[in-house]
Amino acid sequence: MKKIGILGGLAWPATVEYYKAICELSQKYHADAGLPGPSPMPEMCIESVNINYSYNRRGTFGDEESWTAYDAYFHAALKRLEDNGVDFAIIASNTPHNRFDAITKGLRIPVLSIFEAVAATCKAHGVSDCLILGTEPTMDSGIFPGYLKRHGVNGFAPPEAALKAKVTGLISELFKGKSDNGSARIDEVVRASCDQTTGKQSVVCLACTELPLAFEGKEQCETFHHNGVFYLNTTMIHANATFRYAVEGEGA
Amino acid sequence: MKKIGILGGLAWPATVEYYKAICELSQKYHADAGLPGPSPMPEMCIESVNINYSYNRRGTFGDEESWTAYDAYFHAALKRLEDNGVDFAIIASNTPHNRFDAITKGLRIPVLSIFEAVAATCKAHGVSDCLILGTEPTMDSGIFPGYLKRHGVNGFAPPEAALKAKVTGLISELFKGKSDNGSARIDEVVRASCDQTTGKQSVVCLACTELPLAFEGKEQCETFHHNGVFYLNTTMIHANATFRYAVEGEGA
Repeated sequence: MKKIGILGGLAWPATVEYYKAICELSQKYHADAGLPGPSPMPEMCIESVNINYSYNRRGTFGDEESWTAYDAYFHAALKRLEDNGVDFAIIASNTPHNRFDAITKGLRIPVLSIFEAVAATCKAHGVSDCLILGTEPTMDSGIFPGYLKRHGVNGFAPPEAALKAKVTGLISELFKGKSDNGSARIDEVVRASCDQTTGKQSVVCLACTELPLAFEGKEQCETFHHNGVFYLNTTMIHANATFRYAVEGEGA
Repeated sequence: MKKIGILGGLAWPATVEYYKAICELSQKYHADAGLPGPSPMPEMCIESVNINYSYNRRGTFGDEESWTAYDAYFHAALKRLEDNGVDFAIIASNTPHNRFDAITKGLRIPVLSIFEAVAATCKAHGVSDCLILGTEPTMDSGIFPGYLKRHGVNGFAPPEAALKAKVTGLISELFKGKSDNGSARIDEVVRASCDQTTGKQSVVCLACTELPLAFEGKEQCETFHHNGVFYLNTTMIHANATFRYAVEGEGA
């Protein structure tokens, strides 16, 4: 198995979900191997950074200069993973992916993009339109819709600032490891966003790695249905892609 | 906050508990700080190793040579944490602490011992005798009782091989992230062990970082009572000591 590097802490509850998912996938993968001792695990290095530090260094899209400190913080953490000897890395959060090119510039190790993994999953499921729920940078930057477009998917954010604020308010609570009626609150945003579109919208991308935690029991599903809506769980899509890449080329 | 290094994966469910506990402690610590953005977190680097690899390189106590590969695996992981720039490290598992001196030899960074933290907690609670439940090395090596003795505590393992096997069987299940009736099975071992001692035994040290997971709802308690027995949760004792050390000397 390749050694996995994880840039985590953005926020910590999602880092837990990634780590748990990869460990459980390894247990399933080795279940019938009959090896002596506990189930083998891929070696991993998790760089868990300070989300408060990065949050307060967010820049403005369109102003490259304003992102210098933000980009540097994440690039340095990925560089430490590279120096550690990991074979590849992931960033366990959607938000920094809006600065993916700047953050990963000059690294020798591959970094698996969450936006790319989700876009491929959309294509595999024949998704044509997709509502994007996430942090401000993910809903506003236009970066994620660009990835989706290359796979023939029309991605768009909630049409009103008040709806976006409901999403980011919920994310703040989930960052702390708890929230009330999360799935119902997301459902409201989805209905209101659909009312203002063509009406054919029924696919929603939970493009913040914390958002799936609002749907109890669904945290480990790549995709799931809830109240007639088809949800994409970016955390699990990315975690599954990570484990597949870690074991690729092994075995018979 | 000092940067924390965690040698994890031994096994992964306990690594999750350590990481969650440290993050939640940081949230509580900063709750009233009124800082902009999400709660600050200490930076952490987690080296998650392959428990199967280390398990199959366990040696025999009394035969130093037999531990060479085992010691080298953990020493190299701690060295990577040191190279990463962490200010200090912990090993998120009791078992490797039976080889603590060999594993940490030559490191420049401090490594906080779980045995030392638990021994200090025993002393603080006025514990005089303590039943030790853990993996084979922890129950058999005599290392942990040595730490306890320096704090005036008499530590001892279950008196029969069959009782020890019940404990290690349960640990194997908890390594996989699940078990049935774990607390009742531990209770049986405790009663049987007490029957064969002076009868004054009522303090039990869960000296495998997975064992507290058998007591649902108690995973985050340093100590707790269950069925008239006083339990010491080594995972939380160590995680709390880690966070205290990370913020030591800060603030007013």
